[in-house]
Amino acid sequence: MKVASFTISGTASYGIVTDKGVIDAGKRLKAYPTLKALLAKGSLDELKRFSGEKPDHALQDVALLPTVPDPDKIFCIGVNYATHLAESGHPTPAHPMIFTRFANSQVGHGQPMIRPLESERFDYEGEMAVIIGKAGRRVSREAALSHVAGYACYNDGSIRDWQRHTSQFAPGKNFVGTGGFGPWMVTTDELTDVTKQTLITRLNGVVVQKAPISDLVFDVQALIAYCSTFTELAPGDVIVTGTTGGVGAYRTPPLWMKGGDVVEIEISGIGILSNPVKDEGSAAATRAA
Amino acid sequence: MKVASFTISGTASYGIVTDKGVIDAGKRLKAYPTLKALLAKGSLDELKRFSGEKPDHALQDVALLPTVPDPDKIFCIGVNYATHLAESGHPTPAHPMIFTRFANSQVGHGQPMIRPLESERFDYEGEMAVIIGKAGRRVSREAALSHVAGYACYNDGSIRDWQRHTSQFAPGKNFVGTGGFGPWMVTTDELTDVTKQTLITRLNGVVVQKAPISDLVFDVQALIAYCSTFTELAPGDVIVTGTTGGVGAYRTPPLWMKGGDVVEIEISGIGILSNPVKDEGSAAATRAA
Repeated sequence: MKVASFTISGTASYGIVTDKGVIDAGKRLKAYPTLKALLAKGSLDELKRFSGEKPDHALQDVALLPTVPDPDKIFCIGVNYATHLAESGHPTPAHPMIFTRFANSQVGHGQPMIRPLESERFDYEGEMAVIIGKAGRRVSREAALSHVAGYACYNDGSIRDWQRHTSQFAPGKNFVGTGGFGPWMVTTDELTDVTKQTLITRLNGVVVQKAPISDLVFDVQALIAYCSTFTELAPGDVIVTGTTGGVGAYRTPPLWMKGGDVVEIEISGIGILSNPVKDEGSAAATRAA
Repeated sequence: MKVASFTISGTASYGIVTDKGVIDAGKRLKAYPTLKALLAKGSLDELKRFSGEKPDHALQDVALLPTVPDPDKIFCIGVNYATHLAESGHPTPAHPMIFTRFANSQVGHGQPMIRPLESERFDYEGEMAVIIGKAGRRVSREAALSHVAGYACYNDGSIRDWQRHTSQFAPGKNFVGTGGFGPWMVTTDELTDVTKQTLITRLNGVVVQKAPISDLVFDVQALIAYCSTFTELAPGDVIVTGTTGGVGAYRTPPLWMKGGDVVEIEISGIGILSNPVKDEGSAAATRAA
């Protein structure tokens, strides 16, 4: 199943995306008004009851939101592909590198990603996101995948100069409108082995990053085990698993995103997350912010 | 006014703490069930309407929660006092150093702070916390203090080896039960100038940190201006302004907190945040977690 969060006529909801349109789960399951609420009740399977019903909305009529608009926690993983380790000059870490995003930095598929007034150094980072479906502390590697609800595409858009203001990355990773998340999550019954998938980033149609998910230094199981050691994972939490080689900052000359660009993150078996880039201050960006 | 979050007979609420007891605001203001909800409506002043009423609870009958149990964002500031810069060997940063906590790492006054199974290197960090009362993006230095609802004590308890697993601090700053926050916030009408206050940390009654708040490298106005540049501040957000010299990690030999200890953060004009320390695995810690 593909499960997306969206607004329709100004009302937030979520539902199942099929070839024929969107089946609105929010209006059928009043007790669970958001995807996070559904996951918190362990009720993802309830969606299957009406997965064959007639769609309520055409896909083009809904405005997709970040797949989970309101996660309690967003873990981002640094330097987790060998090619990105090489280009960044980082040694291979002995532990996953963890920094965080706030939920209000996220945008959904089709929404503009915002290059802020403060910087021209707006970089893409194509990544696979893991959506947690079941709470857990000190989850073992063996049990880890049973805590996953599904997978989505993520663009961990980064303001590189603000990321380097100090040793800690948070400012450059939390500008409003810089985290693309979507277009939907594919549930684990349908996407049984993410390691067989391939991640591609395109800027204006040109491939700028490409790697098999199997190249992850710390795989999904390892990330869940590590993060759940220090914190309790909650349904709706998101682990953004890290980007691969080819980011704009390490190119000569650097390649920055700018207003008018279109950036896409495609993962086989999931779909394509596409976002236009807007320079803040332009009318379109002001509306979006 | 002193405003605290608490549970009474298993029900979460918040209210005004006076010399005679606690005036329960949650039961009077059903539309605002939490302090964050009250702040989000810009309604902090509504508390004044009944600040003279007879208390509902004795202070010792309520279990204090983190002052804001559910902030959208917790910003922690690194190396923000000259004495801590000196002991840590960090150069004076050109920008505030920002890392983050998740809300589920917090505990209230009197609740145990947990030394986890994974480490013995559990360190105190006495700090002043700023609670945001009004939303804002790109808030000017001049306007910054008008966005503050109040001030509280914070113990940014740190698992030092996990903080140093990679360059990014998040794992060592997010273990469950390591962030003490309280005992209450003092509103800005009562605490008009925090720079005149003094911060003291005591471990088992011995002063281990002491500094005037005026020693902050980046003051409250600078922190609000900087953080609100990249993100939109929301009511209930917390800025934990950094610790001063004297942390356990830089002592010879190092001084770690352990089960049976009592750690106190006192700020003049606010009060004393006191927490017992429990080793995880002991019965008391298991109940608290």
